[in-house]
Amino acid sequence: MIQRMSRLFLRTLREDPADAEVTSHKLLVRAGYMRRVAPGVYSLLPLGLRLMRNIETVVREEMDAIGAQEILLPALLPREPYEASDRWTEYGDNLFRLKDRRDNDYLLGPTHEEIFTLMVKDLYSSYKDFPAILYQIQTKYRDEERPRAGILRGREFVMKDSYSFDMDEAGLEAAYQAHRTAYRRIFDRLGVDYVICSAMSGAMGGSASEEFLAVAEAGEDTFVRSTGSDYAANVEAVTTPAPEPGPVEGLPEAVVHPTPGATTIAALVDWAGRALPERAVTAADTLKLILLAVTEPGGEEELLGVAIPGDREVDMKRVEAALEPAAVRLAEDADFARHPFLVKGFIGPRALAAHGVRLLVDPRVVAGTSWIAGADAPDAHVVDLVCGRDFTPDGTIEAAEIREGDPAPDGRGTLTLDRGIEIGHIFQLGRKYTDAFEVDILDESGKRARPTMGSYGIGVSRLVGVLAEQLSDERGLRWPASVAPYQAHVVIANKDAAAGEAAERLAGDLDAAGVSTLLDDRPKVSPGVKFRDSELLGMPVVVVVGRGFSDGLVELRDRMGGGTREVPYAEAVAAVRALVRGD
Amino acid sequence: MIQRMSRLFLRTLREDPADAEVTSHKLLVRAGYMRRVAPGVYSLLPLGLRLMRNIETVVREEMDAIGAQEILLPALLPREPYEASDRWTEYGDNLFRLKDRRDNDYLLGPTHEEIFTLMVKDLYSSYKDFPAILYQIQTKYRDEERPRAGILRGREFVMKDSYSFDMDEAGLEAAYQAHRTAYRRIFDRLGVDYVICSAMSGAMGGSASEEFLAVAEAGEDTFVRSTGSDYAANVEAVTTPAPEPGPVEGLPEAVVHPTPGATTIAALVDWAGRALPERAVTAADTLKLILLAVTEPGGEEELLGVAIPGDREVDMKRVEAALEPAAVRLAEDADFARHPFLVKGFIGPRALAAHGVRLLVDPRVVAGTSWIAGADAPDAHVVDLVCGRDFTPDGTIEAAEIREGDPAPDGRGTLTLDRGIEIGHIFQLGRKYTDAFEVDILDESGKRARPTMGSYGIGVSRLVGVLAEQLSDERGLRWPASVAPYQAHVVIANKDAAAGEAAERLAGDLDAAGVSTLLDDRPKVSPGVKFRDSELLGMPVVVVVGRGFSDGLVELRDRMGGGTREVPYAEAVAAVRALVRGD
Repeated sequence: MIQRMSRLFLRTLREDPADAEVTSHKLLVRAGYMRRVAPGVYSLLPLGLRLMRNIETVVREEMDAIGAQEILLPALLPREPYEASDRWTEYGDNLFRLKDRRDNDYLLGPTHEEIFTLMVKDLYSSYKDFPAILYQIQTKYRDEERPRAGILRGREFVMKDSYSFDMDEAGLEAAYQAHRTAYRRIFDRLGVDYVICSAMSGAMGGSASEEFLAVAEAGEDTFVRSTGSDYAANVEAVTTPAPEPGPVEGLPEAVVHPTPGATTIAALVDWAGRALPERAVTAADTLKLILLAVTEPGGEEELLGVAIPGDREVDMKRVEAALEPAAVRLAEDADFARHPFLVKGFIGPRALAAHGVRLLVDPRVVAGTSWIAGADAPDAHVVDLVCGRDFTPDGTIEAAEIREGDPAPDGRGTLTLDRGIEIGHIFQLGRKYTDAFEVDILDESGKRARPTMGSYGIGVSRLVGVLAEQLSDERGLRWPASVAPYQAHVVIANKDAAAGEAAERLAGDLDAAGVSTLLDDRPKVSPGVKFRDSELLGMPVVVVVGRGFSDGLVELRDRMGGGTREVPYAEAVAAVRALVRGD
Repeated sequence: MIQRMSRLFLRTLREDPADAEVTSHKLLVRAGYMRRVAPGVYSLLPLGLRLMRNIETVVREEMDAIGAQEILLPALLPREPYEASDRWTEYGDNLFRLKDRRDNDYLLGPTHEEIFTLMVKDLYSSYKDFPAILYQIQTKYRDEERPRAGILRGREFVMKDSYSFDMDEAGLEAAYQAHRTAYRRIFDRLGVDYVICSAMSGAMGGSASEEFLAVAEAGEDTFVRSTGSDYAANVEAVTTPAPEPGPVEGLPEAVVHPTPGATTIAALVDWAGRALPERAVTAADTLKLILLAVTEPGGEEELLGVAIPGDREVDMKRVEAALEPAAVRLAEDADFARHPFLVKGFIGPRALAAHGVRLLVDPRVVAGTSWIAGADAPDAHVVDLVCGRDFTPDGTIEAAEIREGDPAPDGRGTLTLDRGIEIGHIFQLGRKYTDAFEVDILDESGKRARPTMGSYGIGVSRLVGVLAEQLSDERGLRWPASVAPYQAHVVIANKDAAAGEAAERLAGDLDAAGVSTLLDDRPKVSPGVKFRDSELLGMPVVVVVGRGFSDGLVELRDRMGGGTREVPYAEAVAAVRALVRGD
């Protein structure tokens, strides 16, 4: 069935919507693909819905191809399973919670590990039932703090989430690799520019984990790539190469110096330039000590010291990822007031050790390195404080910012920084949920065993925004034929009745040839407006039945590849099909 | 792709689930089509999801065929539009309400009149844009008081809801009729046994309205059909034929009699039998007066008297429908205490009139009819109280129960009562929402006009239960080929390796011939169990590769039509196709 623009539920706008900050948001609203209903909550209009359904089809085909089975879980979920897994609490304000008329607690599902696990426990009991991969394409909810990137970060959104269940680690690894391959095929078919990044585990808890990030300025995730290999990781997952520890013997003794008012690294370096000019001290020679208040789930809040080279800033996202699932905040005046041994601006490793406060250090702070650090007294620092001699850290932490040019963890090349949008995540969960719900399966020897799980997600509605972000140009949206709402867009740009009829016939022929077709048959709209709309709407091939029609020619515009050419009317269908197929 | 049962996420149960009351619920759980997550909240397993998707496809095709355009609205909706339409309050406890992290009010959409209306207001401004029909197939929420009929009445469910927008009544009528035709085609294709009933407007407010009810014992709606015509209506919509009013002249005078203790109709008839034996008084000669407390939206609670013939019970569902959108309750002791003129058990029309309480009467209570009614004094009734002489009602009301054998409103035949499940509803809404949201459209003469709306719904997930309810038999589920999860179910019931290979080949050939196919290849399951499962699962055609295979024969079981026959292996594909197509 061809879709006539004269009857399409569509309105294109010349102006960007006032609340839109990113390109995809602006264009998708201007082109009538979606409308905002509430912050982070959108309606998909006919073109937007077709696009998303086409993306879903690609996802479904590739999931089915790895033997995954589709089911559909509710979004309205009871509290109890999420209580059992601790996520009722862990999710904090991100979870939409509600009560029913009988005052029972419910939530709107952010992901469904709990329910899938319970389902497998309900249906399966023998090792013969495994392996199993189950998935759904379903609406999810997350009460984002700042839902402002349009469909890129909605509070109601569509995800494909899948879960693998295996009796052993080899099975989990196979399911993980199958997903990795399926995801690559999906994103390749969609034409997304993406990288696969090593990732920290996030709120899920577990081990191996990779993120698929679409490269985009509008992305909220920063990731690194190496100039010397195909290493890529999100910033939270980058590890800092540690230098070899050195001997402490023979190093100069630690000496306390008065450093009045040097409460910042800059002031300290300034002081050193005056007091110890021969040393040519830089910020990298100083130790920056940050005090955090950390709360493990179910535990009490505790102080924690973190020390990094003074030339780096602390990256709180990396700190949070490193300390997950604990909640973390910077110490405040009240904390200092409660602990008089903390001399603000002059805290050093020694007072922490003396008062039982744990100290984690940057991996560059190894035994034998020498630092200028706080002396735990007002207006005083200690010079030549040696790690492994004058203080002994309780461990290391990835707390320092990553910088463009830092050495790559694999030792090959240096790092570059880019921004990306998470479009997929694959994750070896392990037994967190099968333990929480006591999923006992009889193994080959008749003993009880717990299956191990993987969890895998693709942001389906987000991909609508990602494609708009990556593929659009200054004239509007552009869609690959694999998922475009319509593959061809026939524009009647000739008032001659014969031309109009020919365009109608051409649209019908394209449709019959399996090319989904939009026909701009609006009677009172000028060719100029139609052309602009066709560029804004972004179907991959635009066919103009215009002035050339009197010579038997129509114009083919390759919206995706660029370029325009005239072809004889009789050859138009074949030419469009060739373009759509990428021949 | 054929689906192997050895790998299907499925577990069939021999026992009915403890919480299931209706057949469809029992069978859908036993056959592994769905599982309960919370009261009224279900997961669809692979077979259940395929079934529902097939139903969706039928619905979508027929909606597209009438020119409706599919969009997708969110389920999470802001309070404001529902406040503007009053439905935030009107829906009462049926609405799931929640707050986001900023304490803003949201709801989970029960239907989307408000948002569709706002969308049309946003996109359309000229009469040239009309008519328009928009629809979605989407997940809805209603906090049912007693969600206990499985998927027949869930709290999270899938609906197709559509909305028509027209500039005039003729357009609305056309959209309404187009929907009526599409719905008939949909339900016919699905093989549902249904009736189209005149309906009251319900919580929507508006005029013309019909319900599509699937005939089923498990239904919560009672409807009537006429023995003499194709009249059908839900009980709330049945009108009572009123007799011709008669003259009041010459009728015996009203006389008060002492009727000690006669506070019920039975006691009153009993008294009359003793006191006035010559009259042969029956309950139908008495007037039953019920006192209600009625609150119009935004108004104060008021008393209302309702009088019906004493041989009938009051049907509160009919009363509520008649008085909608007012809230209604029966008067309680406290009401009587507040109004001493109300003599409980002996209330009559006259005290109500004297104290300004409105009285609505059954349509059978017309001028010239004579009744035995309460005398508004303790232990007293009045005989020969004549309507139109001794009391004048303020109007009529359909408050009395409908009974099997009552005359049909169209005067042709009598009524029979049946139970049904609402599967569709079509409804001429009018301008309630375009007025509420001030949708101003320029008409042909350049003046502002308000479009008129229709609203139309189909319970998509409910249809899964309805088909199970209507089509199942004592052995299990049965699905029509139009929506069955798989059209053919090939059972390997012969341990011979050649038979197994032949079955695999047959399944592949069926799949290649466009027949979706399930293959029972479970190696260690007995033929008996496989047969029972095939009956429970209910695919329309079961092909058994069993004992007869050594003679080159396979067995075809027509699960839907009944009957079994053997066909040569080579002819099996053609024979299955013929059965599936209904040839």
